[in-house]
Amino acid sequence: MAKLYFNYSTMNAGKSTVLLQASHNYIERGMKTYLMIAQLDNRAGDGRIGSRIGIGANADTFGPGEDLYVKVQKRLGEGPCACVFVDEAQFLERQQVWQLARAVDDLDVPVMAYGLRVDFLGKLFPGSAALLALADEMREVRTICRCGKKATMVVRKDEYGQVLTSGEQIAIGGNDRYVSLCRKHWREEMGEPKPES
Amino acid sequence: MAKLYFNYSTMNAGKSTVLLQASHNYIERGMKTYLMIAQLDNRAGDGRIGSRIGIGANADTFGPGEDLYVKVQKRLGEGPCACVFVDEAQFLERQQVWQLARAVDDLDVPVMAYGLRVDFLGKLFPGSAALLALADEMREVRTICRCGKKATMVVRKDEYGQVLTSGEQIAIGGNDRYVSLCRKHWREEMGEPKPES
Amino acid sequence: MAKLYFNYSTMNAGKSTVLLQASHNYIERGMKTYLMIAQLDNRAGDGRIGSRIGIGANADTFGPGEDLYVKVQKRLGEGPCACVFVDEAQFLERQQVWQLARAVDDLDVPVMAYGLRVDFLGKLFPGSAALLALADEMREVRTICRCGKKATMVVRKDEYGQVLTSGEQIAIGGNDRYVSLCRKHWREEMGEPKPES
Amino acid sequence: MAKLYFNYSTMNAGKSTVLLQASHNYIERGMKTYLMIAQLDNRAGDGRIGSRIGIGANADTFGPGEDLYVKVQKRLGEGPCACVFVDEAQFLERQQVWQLARAVDDLDVPVMAYGLRVDFLGKLFPGSAALLALADEMREVRTICRCGKKATMVVRKDEYGQVLTSGEQIAIGGNDRYVSLCRKHWREEMGEPKPES
Repeated sequence: MAKLYFNYSTMNAGKSTVLLQASHNYIERGMKTYLMIAQLDNRAGDGRIGSRIGIGANADTFGPGEDLYVKVQKRLGEGPCACVFVDEAQFLERQQVWQLARAVDDLDVPVMAYGLRVDFLGKLFPGSAALLALADEMREVRTICRCGKKATMVVRKDEYGQVLTSGEQIAIGGNDRYVSLCRKHWREEMGEPKPES
Repeated sequence: MAKLYFNYSTMNAGKSTVLLQASHNYIERGMKTYLMIAQLDNRAGDGRIGSRIGIGANADTFGPGEDLYVKVQKRLGEGPCACVFVDEAQFLERQQVWQLARAVDDLDVPVMAYGLRVDFLGKLFPGSAALLALADEMREVRTICRCGKKATMVVRKDEYGQVLTSGEQIAIGGNDRYVSLCRKHWREEMGEPKPES
Repeated sequence: MAKLYFNYSTMNAGKSTVLLQASHNYIERGMKTYLMIAQLDNRAGDGRIGSRIGIGANADTFGPGEDLYVKVQKRLGEGPCACVFVDEAQFLERQQVWQLARAVDDLDVPVMAYGLRVDFLGKLFPGSAALLALADEMREVRTICRCGKKATMVVRKDEYGQVLTSGEQIAIGGNDRYVSLCRKHWREEMGEPKPES
Repeated sequence: MAKLYFNYSTMNAGKSTVLLQASHNYIERGMKTYLMIAQLDNRAGDGRIGSRIGIGANADTFGPGEDLYVKVQKRLGEGPCACVFVDEAQFLERQQVWQLARAVDDLDVPVMAYGLRVDFLGKLFPGSAALLALADEMREVRTICRCGKKATMVVRKDEYGQVLTSGEQIAIGGNDRYVSLCRKHWREEMGEPKPES
C-alpha cells in the first residue's frame, strides 16, 4: 500500500526544505529514512541535500544506469527504512523511475521524489516525464513570479544576465542563473514563438 | 488571471461526466461555454462529448495542425464565452497545448482539458506530456482497479481478450477493449520487464 | 487502509453527479456500492440521489439518531460492498460522522461523503464541521459565481427574490431559492457586518 | 484576486517550516511579507515563528479581540507587503478569520494561515472551524503516525506520560506532551466511546 509521490515545482521554490522536513518527521518518530540526490559530478555516494534556507542532510547519490530498485533493496537489507526520499528527481532516467515504482509496489516502501517539472525551454525533464506518468500522488511546491502570481516556468541567464533561448537542458552554473516566472512573463522574456516549437 | 487546467485519469473514470457537469454549471448561470473534442475521423466540426452514464453534448472538434489559439479567438469573437472545455486532450499536439496556454494568458479565458495520462504501454500521450508540463492546475479524476485500489494504468486487449504488449498508441476499437488497473496489476498483466524499456 | 473522504462544495456544483459517477465506476467493474442520503421527511428507507443534469439512483436514507456504523455493518453482512456513498452529508450528526469513521477503520470499507461546506449565513453545518475535522481526504467540487470566480458561499432568497440574512439553517424550498456566489459578492448581497457575528 | 489559504495539519508536521520557506520565497524575490503568530502570553508584538528543524523569523502577534483587518491595513499603509502569513491560526477567533477574509478581498493581499485542525479530543479549534468554512484553498501538511500511516489526530499526555481524555483545549506545556497519531491508534489510546460524544 506504499505510494510513489512526485512533488514538483520550478526552481527555488523550497523543494529541498520540504523534503528535509518530511524526512525529519520520520526521524523524530524514531524511524529511519533513505535520502538520495542526483550525482552530477564524479563523487559517487557522498551527496548532500541542502536548502537555501539553511538546513541540510547527507544523502546517497544516484547516477546514470544505476538500478535504483537494487539500491533500495540493498538499503532495506541493511536495516529498517520507513521512507525513501529522492532529490533532483528530474535527473532520473525513465527506467529508474520504473525501478522506484517497483520498489514501492514490491518492497512496500514509500518513495517521495522532488524535482523540477520543466527546463528553461518549457520542456519536461526525462525524470519528470516518467514521474508525471507514473506517480500515485502529485503535489506542487509553489513559488511566485516577480509579479506575485504563481511561477511555473524558469529562464536561464548567461553570465551577463541575458536570457538564453537555446542550450543544453543541464548546465553548469549556480541557481542564481535561473529565475522562476509565471508563464506570461516567461513568454515575454523568451520571445515568441520559439518556445512552442 | 484565467488558468489552464488538466484533469487527467486512466480510461473509463468518468472524465466526460465531470466535463459535462462543469460546463452545465456555467450554462445554469446564464454563461456560455465552448466544447471541443478530438476529431478521430473525417467528420470535422460535428463532434459530440458523451458519457457512459448517459449524458452528452454537442462539441466542436480539433484535428492535427489546427491552430487552437485562432479557434478560441474566433469563438470569442462570435459572442461571450466563459470557459473552454477540451475532451480527449491526450490527442492534442504539443503546439496546440501551447496555443491553448496562450489563449488562457492573452485572451483571459479559462481552458479545462480532460484526458488520459498514459497509454496502454505506460507512456505519456503527446497532449498529456505537454499539459503535464504547462497546466496551471492538475487534478486526478479517480477510478478503481478490480482490486479496489486506485487505477492509474490501462491495458488494451485484442478481440480474443488477450492483453497486448505492443502496438500503436491509438487504435480503433471500443472502450471495452481497455481495462483500467493499478500499477501492480498492470505489471502482472503486461509481464516484466518489457514495459520499462 | 480504507479512508473517509469528504467532497465539499457550495450549492448546485454537481456533487451528486460526481457521487453517481464514482459509484458507477464501481458497478461497471462488477462491484457493489451502498448509497445513503439524508432523510428530510418521513419516508425512511426509500431515498433517491438525483442530479440536475439528469441522472439518478435509489438510495437508503439516514435520519437523526441512527447508528451509521450499525447500518454499514448490516449492509456488509448482506453481501459484498466495495464503497459507501453518503449524499447531503452536511446533515450528518457529529456522532454519525464518528460512526462512519469507525466503519472505515474497523470494517475496512471506504466512505465517500458529499455535502455542503457552509450554510447561507456562512456557518459550517454540523455534519460538515465533523467531516472537515475527521476526513482523511478532502476535495472541493468547484462551481462558479456569476462573476466567473469560484463560488464558495451561498445566499438564500425568499419567495420574492429577496436575500435572507437570518433564518433556520435548513429550510423547506427548492434549490432555486439558493444562489452560489464568491465571498465578495456574497458579502455584497448579505450586507456588512452582520455575517461576521 | 488574492486568496485566503489554510494549511492545516496535526502537531509537529512542520507547518512553521513550510510557512518560513514560503515567506522566504517572497523575500528572495525582493518582496516583503508580514508574519503574525498567536500571542499566548503577555508579550504583545514581539513574537517569533520557530521551527523544530532549526529555522525561525520574528513575527508580530495577534491576541483576542484584535481587529486583524485593521492590523493588515495598517501594515500595508507602512509599505509594500506581498503576502500575510499567520502561524498558530487555530487560535484565531471566528471574527478574526472574517477580518482576514475581508483583507484578502478588499485589500487584495493573499493571506496564508497555518494551524492545527483538531485538538486532542478530536474537536475543531475555533480558528480552524472558521478557516475550514471560509478558506479559498485548503492544503494538508502531512506527517506520520508511529505506524507509518498519515497522522491526523493528536493525543495529549500528562507529566507521567499518561494520555489525557479530558481537559482544556489549550494547555501550558511543551510540544513533547503531544503525540500525533492516525485515527485508529488515537482511538486505541483514547479508549472508546468517549471521544464521540
